[in-house]
Amino acid sequence: MDSSEEKRKRLVAPQTLKGFRDLMPVAMIARNAVIEKIRSVYEKYGFVPIDTPVLEHLGTLLGPGGEEINKELFRLESPEREPIAMRFDLTVPYARLLAQYPDQLKLPFRRYHVGPVFRADKPGPGRFRQFVQFDIDAAGSESVAVDAEIVAAMAEVMRALGLGNGEFQIRINNRRLVDALLLCQGIADGETQKHVLRVIDKLPKVGAESVRKELGDGRVDDSGDPIPGVGLSGGVIEDLIQFISIQGTSRKEVLDGLARVLPQGATRDAALGEMSELNEALASLRVAEHEAVFDPSLMRGLDYYTGPVFEAHLPGAPHFGSVMGGGRYDQLVARFMDQSVPATGASIGLDRLMDALAHLGRIRTAPTTTKVMVLSLRGVPSRELLSIAHDLRDQGIPTEVFFAGSNAGFRDQLSAANARQVPIAVILGEDELKTGRVSIKDLRVGMQARAAIQSHEEYKKSGRTGQVTVARNELVQTVTHLLSGQ
Amino acid sequence: MDSSEEKRKRLVAPQTLKGFRDLMPVAMIARNAVIEKIRSVYEKYGFVPIDTPVLEHLGTLLGPGGEEINKELFRLESPEREPIAMRFDLTVPYARLLAQYPDQLKLPFRRYHVGPVFRADKPGPGRFRQFVQFDIDAAGSESVAVDAEIVAAMAEVMRALGLGNGEFQIRINNRRLVDALLLCQGIADGETQKHVLRVIDKLPKVGAESVRKELGDGRVDDSGDPIPGVGLSGGVIEDLIQFISIQGTSRKEVLDGLARVLPQGATRDAALGEMSELNEALASLRVAEHEAVFDPSLMRGLDYYTGPVFEAHLPGAPHFGSVMGGGRYDQLVARFMDQSVPATGASIGLDRLMDALAHLGRIRTAPTTTKVMVLSLRGVPSRELLSIAHDLRDQGIPTEVFFAGSNAGFRDQLSAANARQVPIAVILGEDELKTGRVSIKDLRVGMQARAAIQSHEEYKKSGRTGQVTVARNELVQTVTHLLSGQ
Repeated sequence: MDSSEEKRKRLVAPQTLKGFRDLMPVAMIARNAVIEKIRSVYEKYGFVPIDTPVLEHLGTLLGPGGEEINKELFRLESPEREPIAMRFDLTVPYARLLAQYPDQLKLPFRRYHVGPVFRADKPGPGRFRQFVQFDIDAAGSESVAVDAEIVAAMAEVMRALGLGNGEFQIRINNRRLVDALLLCQGIADGETQKHVLRVIDKLPKVGAESVRKELGDGRVDDSGDPIPGVGLSGGVIEDLIQFISIQGTSRKEVLDGLARVLPQGATRDAALGEMSELNEALASLRVAEHEAVFDPSLMRGLDYYTGPVFEAHLPGAPHFGSVMGGGRYDQLVARFMDQSVPATGASIGLDRLMDALAHLGRIRTAPTTTKVMVLSLRGVPSRELLSIAHDLRDQGIPTEVFFAGSNAGFRDQLSAANARQVPIAVILGEDELKTGRVSIKDLRVGMQARAAIQSHEEYKKSGRTGQVTVARNELVQTVTHLLSGQ
Repeated sequence: MDSSEEKRKRLVAPQTLKGFRDLMPVAMIARNAVIEKIRSVYEKYGFVPIDTPVLEHLGTLLGPGGEEINKELFRLESPEREPIAMRFDLTVPYARLLAQYPDQLKLPFRRYHVGPVFRADKPGPGRFRQFVQFDIDAAGSESVAVDAEIVAAMAEVMRALGLGNGEFQIRINNRRLVDALLLCQGIADGETQKHVLRVIDKLPKVGAESVRKELGDGRVDDSGDPIPGVGLSGGVIEDLIQFISIQGTSRKEVLDGLARVLPQGATRDAALGEMSELNEALASLRVAEHEAVFDPSLMRGLDYYTGPVFEAHLPGAPHFGSVMGGGRYDQLVARFMDQSVPATGASIGLDRLMDALAHLGRIRTAPTTTKVMVLSLRGVPSRELLSIAHDLRDQGIPTEVFFAGSNAGFRDQLSAANARQVPIAVILGEDELKTGRVSIKDLRVGMQARAAIQSHEEYKKSGRTGQVTVARNELVQTVTHLLSGQ
């Protein structure tokens, strides 16, 4: 027989993995409500759901996200000893799907997909190794009208989540514009281009002066660590800074500014023409100027973008960064098939979005969806409690019977119900049993009353605040009445 | 520059991993509807949602499911080089949660959890390596009243999915009964006990004669392979067979039968008393005799069950096996903390349930939730189509604009809309543009009409069946009217 000391040694420590998190009911109830709102918007835009496995062949995932993402893959082996990995986003699996089922998924095809993705990067506050993405993507058309639809859907999601004028902003840029700029500055090498994009992407975080240094000889960061620079010349740097600093009070004004600084040429004309068309499409979809702005400093990291890119942030919660982002990736499907399929989409980082909404007080937090808790005094048979629960549930009222260890007294039961913010307690004691009655207590009234209590006398009297006793056959009707708030 | 041959060689083959599957919209739309129905039932029973990571410390998962499950774990390493694995069920993570957050998760605590689980076993028809479980579990009470609530919730889920009288059945047994039987037969060795349970669990699949042989000296299966036996004596085998063959027209009758065959003793009395109490609780919750039966042959594989066990199957789809199962596991939490927490629950295998429901024709399959497809003839500007989409969506009508390659003619658009079973097409051509009108085609009418077509003349005329042309400002009203089915 084990001593308790020996048993303690054999215990498995209950621990969540570093960089991962458990979600408690209060977080999940809020999350489910947000997911439903997003789903409803996306279905209105014609997107339909699909699902793909969490695991993919390593070859499917390796490459398209870029070197940094390659390093962050959770890799393992299949039972057949093939190299496999956990997906790092939902876009690459979508591209695989389009190539794999050309007969089933006729173009144009727009889908939504919500599910967990995995990145083995350095965790930090608000950064997790497993997080949920909620994606929309539309394949089959090169038209920027579809990019505009993606942006309109993004804006409508934000509005559906209760964010009003100025509380969210979608920044839009175009990789073609950036390409035009880099080429005319003579920056043709792929690695250098990527380095430049990475540095520019830091602009909102580190400011123009640090960007200037990183584009040149490098700088020393706050901790004293050296950050190597790209090594561009002063003239080129100033041209880049001028380009990414262009702003305007309307999307049109930004385009006019870009037309002034970008050197003439076919690439420039094509890129500006596309952005102008995008602007017109956004206007047709009634996306307001303050909801979606053109911002030449937006780069976005992933390697697979080829056209417009988008990113949404909440100005009231700037340190959460972007809560949603995406863009056009016309070449990703061509990794898998002998044909390119134009596609564009956006992804919500649900965890970050929830955190940012909570920060802004836009999440209503309830620890339960249960409306009635059935409490009992000692000696009341279970069958009576279950019968009450049955009748309430039968009318669609979420009900829990308080079943716990026999040492849970009535006070414990009542305080548990209060702690969970359950609105109604139904109470069955021997008195009620004998007389065929039940007591019903509106715990919301009790909460208000307790807040106003001044003396011990009042406290003692408050025990029965909001409590009525009715015949058993009047139970359901009384509870329904109380819950309807009358 | 690549030749196209070279490019083809560099293509990544678009492949789903062996044992995994992609879900197309038609499957996902049905699945989401089923999940919503289940969620609604579970919330009515007082369960609240939680979520835990897909990955866990290996030590958390290794052991509680038994040797077979250990072998089926997808194992990998964390970035910190710890051994980790993908979860094989949602029950073990729930037990970890209860031990890890005793202050946040006050008992009694009932939660639901829906998410993917992973088992690296041999895939087959309907057997996948990733599948979704939808679990409920209630912790904090040893009372069989809670087991009865789990069974009642299972039954109500089945009813909510449209399964009526005799279309589902929940079998219930109790590990204590089985323990009482094994002990009085002198089968005390743990490994032998497990072997006996495994053999008995095969009863519905292989029949009593094969079970008899496997409990004895073994048998040869259909393929000629030898199956080793447990090696029990003839008398013990007959007692076991007699026990597991007990049936009755009511749960009470089965209990009476068990009382007759089980030798007297405290263990027997305790087990039968518990089952009797469970029966009474099921009656209070109005779970009909045909919905939940006592069946002494039900064993269930997982090692962690300690009391009542349950399993639901659909008699009309027997080859799908059990679609839902669970039981009481009062010792699982004690793996993680110096205290045992009684708990009981049930798990739905969502993939298998969906397959079985589809087999029974209980899944309404729609390939889209989109109600309107906006089609256009060549030369119509995007902004007009987007504006139509905006107005329809603004009234909550799911709308897709058909944007595809420029080679998609009007016929292609119309047949795409028909193939997806979108009910309404809104059509914009140059005629409509000039006159400020739009054409609206009820594709459901067209489908019915085409089915009745007899001649080529009729076919030619049928092109405009169900089609009306209205002023642009009457568009939304007309579509709403058509969709409301009037």
